[in-house]
Amino acid sequence: MRIARFSAGEGVTYGVVEGGPGEEFVSSVAGHPIGGVQFTGERFPLAEVRLVAPIIPTKIIAIGKNYADHAREMGGEPPAEPVIFSKPSSAVIGPGEAIVYPEKLSERVDFEGELAVVIGRLCRDVPVERAKEVIFGYTCANDVTARDLQAKDGQWTRAKGFDTFCPLGPWIQTDLDPSDLAITTTVNGEIRQSARTSQLMHDVPALIAYVTAVMTLIPGDVILTGTPAGVGPLSIGDEVGVGIEGIGTLTNRVVSRD
Amino acid sequence: MRIARFSAGEGVTYGVVEGGPGEEFVSSVAGHPIGGVQFTGERFPLAEVRLVAPIIPTKIIAIGKNYADHAREMGGEPPAEPVIFSKPSSAVIGPGEAIVYPEKLSERVDFEGELAVVIGRLCRDVPVERAKEVIFGYTCANDVTARDLQAKDGQWTRAKGFDTFCPLGPWIQTDLDPSDLAITTTVNGEIRQSARTSQLMHDVPALIAYVTAVMTLIPGDVILTGTPAGVGPLSIGDEVGVGIEGIGTLTNRVVSRD
Repeated sequence: MRIARFSAGEGVTYGVVEGGPGEEFVSSVAGHPIGGVQFTGERFPLAEVRLVAPIIPTKIIAIGKNYADHAREMGGEPPAEPVIFSKPSSAVIGPGEAIVYPEKLSERVDFEGELAVVIGRLCRDVPVERAKEVIFGYTCANDVTARDLQAKDGQWTRAKGFDTFCPLGPWIQTDLDPSDLAITTTVNGEIRQSARTSQLMHDVPALIAYVTAVMTLIPGDVILTGTPAGVGPLSIGDEVGVGIEGIGTLTNRVVSRD
Repeated sequence: MRIARFSAGEGVTYGVVEGGPGEEFVSSVAGHPIGGVQFTGERFPLAEVRLVAPIIPTKIIAIGKNYADHAREMGGEPPAEPVIFSKPSSAVIGPGEAIVYPEKLSERVDFEGELAVVIGRLCRDVPVERAKEVIFGYTCANDVTARDLQAKDGQWTRAKGFDTFCPLGPWIQTDLDPSDLAITTTVNGEIRQSARTSQLMHDVPALIAYVTAVMTLIPGDVILTGTPAGVGPLSIGDEVGVGIEGIGTLTNRVVSRD
């Protein structure tokens, strides 16, 4: 199922996206879909609703340098263990919403296309072989990063924590094997990152085990699995798309803060 | 006012702690006290209720190396600008709850006593001179840190992100000038950190301006203002107390995970 959050006028509700390309519609569901989907009977053409971020997580745990070729382009060898950092929930935006360029504080803002895992159950100390049980689904993410501040600060929290720096969407795909999916980032239609999730050094089950050895995850929490090689700068006016096979494409435009 | 969250049997509610030492009681308030306190008329002796964390923030933004003498004990000069990092909300515990030592992953877990600021209003781009308007109050915090993992990882998210690594409490003091308060950390009654908040290199208004230039804060969010010199290791069985003049003392015991 493709689980979306959307607005068809007033308020925001969850729904299931159904139908083939060009003929998609969204069927409303009652309440929160984690735990079970109950259709209300209302449906809308997808083209007539506004999608918003498919989830507002209590926390977003992200993995640094999890594709070897990206670790090398950043000037180092890939680390033996995952490097974790976090992005604040205030950074989340949905598909079609604007990434706001903080010109006063940064002169270099990069895209980073990533596969995002959405957690479906409260969990701690999840063994690798049971990781699948705690996953609700998958979506596309852009781990937008002020590259100059990342280098300057040492800690990445500020560089990756600006409002709008965590686009998620367009929806959560609940039926997906994440082990070998094509992931592509485009800027103004031109391919800038192209990889497969099979190149992840630490795969989704390993990441869930690693993170939950430290902290409790709750339903709706998100793990960003890392970005492949090809990261690069965004400019105001650019349109950036993160597409993942079996999910869809998350598209956002970059605007000025002023 | 001293705003506490407590349980007097079933459920958790907010209350106001009143009365002098040894004769304190908690007066229940309806709903959430941010925005206005409405007494229900119920009151309990403080000694007969169980205090819990006074707030569950959507985010905890912490400041590294904000006391010069601590920056030097960590082997560096204090940075010119605040260094920010974050702790997950899953790390929060209240007064009297146990800090759980993750023996399997760390051999060195340190206390770090800190003044915590609790935000009272949704805010972004707050100028220094208006910072006071967005503060709900102040509490004591312990920025518990797996020092060995902090050094190993580079990023501090894992080292500072374990469940139970963010004790907050005992309550939120809403009437307080934070500019020159004594702050003391004890382990088993012995003083280990002793400083004044006047030694903060970046004071509370400056930190609020700095953080909100990056991200939106919402009511209940917490800023940890940094720890003074004297940090050191905790052992299983230790009792650690963080006391701040005008607030009170946050006490937690360290227990084994096993």
